[in-house]
Amino acid sequence: MRILHVGASGTLGRAVAETLQARGHTLIRAGRQGGDIAVDITDEASVRAMYAQVGDFGALVATLGRVHFAPLADFSRAQWQIGLDDKLMGQVRLVQMGLAQVREGGSFTLTSGLLNDEPIRQGASAAMVNAALEGFVRAAALEMPRGARINLVSPTLLAESVPVYAPFFPGTAPMAAREVALGYVRSIEGAHTGRVLRMGWSLER
Amino acid sequence: MRILHVGASGTLGRAVAETLQARGHTLIRAGRQGGDIAVDITDEASVRAMYAQVGDFGALVATLGRVHFAPLADFSRAQWQIGLDDKLMGQVRLVQMGLAQVREGGSFTLTSGLLNDEPIRQGASAAMVNAALEGFVRAAALEMPRGARINLVSPTLLAESVPVYAPFFPGTAPMAAREVALGYVRSIEGAHTGRVLRMGWSLER
Ligand SMILES: NC(=O)c1ccc[n+]([C@@H]2O[C@H](COP(=O)([O-])OP(=O)(O)OC[C@H]3O[C@@H](n4cnc5c(N)ncnc54)[C@H](OP(=O)(O)O)[C@@H]3O)[C@@H](O)[C@H]2O)c1
Ligand SMILES: NC(=O)c1ccc[n+]([C@@H]2O[C@H](COP(=O)([O-])OP(=O)(O)OC[C@H]3O[C@@H](n4cnc5c(N)ncnc54)[C@H](OP(=O)(O)O)[C@@H]3O)[C@@H](O)[C@H]2O)c1
Repeated sequence: MRILHVGASGTLGRAVAETLQARGHTLIRAGRQGGDIAVDITDEASVRAMYAQVGDFGALVATLGRVHFAPLADFSRAQWQIGLDDKLMGQVRLVQMGLAQVREGGSFTLTSGLLNDEPIRQGASAAMVNAALEGFVRAAALEMPRGARINLVSPTLLAESVPVYAPFFPGTAPMAAREVALGYVRSIEGAHTGRVLRMGWSLER
Repeated sequence: MRILHVGASGTLGRAVAETLQARGHTLIRAGRQGGDIAVDITDEASVRAMYAQVGDFGALVATLGRVHFAPLADFSRAQWQIGLDDKLMGQVRLVQMGLAQVREGGSFTLTSGLLNDEPIRQGASAAMVNAALEGFVRAAALEMPRGARINLVSPTLLAESVPVYAPFFPGTAPMAAREVALGYVRSIEGAHTGRVLRMGWSLER
């Protein structure tokens, strides 16, 4: 399948891209620093230009998204805005602008993370944005054209990121990015839609 | 208890205000058109001025929040921004700017709605914003000062709003605003924190 993968060069993205390629898919890699196509998801014109270059596709995968971390009392408007513009509306923009070009039965797979269900101190923006993506995906699934589907992969802490993030996640079992990659396979090749695929943890609420 | 109630003049707000007053609380009502204090939650300076006027308080209640409804493919950037600026960040702003003045053991109670768990067509922004509020409340509960608490009330369709909204909600049992008001009582007088109080429906996922 022809897969447009935005964020393919990242910690998570590299493992997802390898897995998808090993399963015989053809990847078009995008990111700010290039790959096959240079794109900045925070910039509408840039996303439009990417889709114009790509043409139609079987799946869009996004493994990216920035949020700011700070004590709740200290967040400035601009710091809240980082998560809203980048991880949230950046991914929403990829979906909305890709609707016209996704093939019959194709799919969109976005990325959130555990922080809305397993919150941590300084993580109010991450929790808000991850949860917002869940709500968006559940609702957007009702309005997909041509039988297209949309899902969200919510990874736990990646094993590859333990050296950087472990102090913020006491008691959290990490998972290797290549195992998290299975969530993307499930979303792309399975029949799921409007689903949150939690990788490495389960919803206990 | 001294309760600052923003949105007290609305369909939901009127019933919540009556219920809280009947339980012996002292209400300070705020909204754009006045009440006791005029405030616009989308305006940081206006919220700051409100809190300067109010001083300390036992509970903040927000029964308000605008979002735009449209087919997913048609949302403009400005239309997404309505929900993000008003219902989402407006309520977040009320919490963040009130942190310094909430009394020992006081509380914040915000309002979302069923649309993130029971999505409808044209409701992608509403679903996103309601879900974002859930994530925010769960995370913010970890960072409340002086034993303060924070919860979210998620009402079903109000009986009072059936004449306006019923066509969008096939098969949804409405609930009278005065019954939904019990969620606010539970949040304010109970011991809950970081909770989503679903009023009139249950989470079936
Ligand atoms: N790492 C973890 O433990 C973990 C756990 C749970 C969830 N997550 C989530 O998984 C996602 C990816 O995390 P990661 O650790 O793999 O991040 P990462 O290593 O920083 O990778 C980000 C990727 O996205 C691209 N990118 C960044 N900003 C972009 C923009 N504005 N436009 C287009 N491309 C952009 C980057 O390439 P360029 O620099 O070339 O743009 C890179 O390929 C994030 O949403 C993160 O919150 C991560
Ligand atoms: N109605 C329903 O069936 C239903 C169901 C589920 C969830 N909800 C949610 O419940 C909340 C309230 O709904 P509602 O139907 O009661 O709304 P409403 O009747 O429109 O009331 C809104 C209230 O908020 C105030 N307000 C509006 N914008 C404001 C701003 N920028 N700054 C300060 N105050 C503002 C209004 O007073 P002023 O005009 O004086 O500002 C009014 O008191 C919304 O979040 C809605 O999504 C409603």
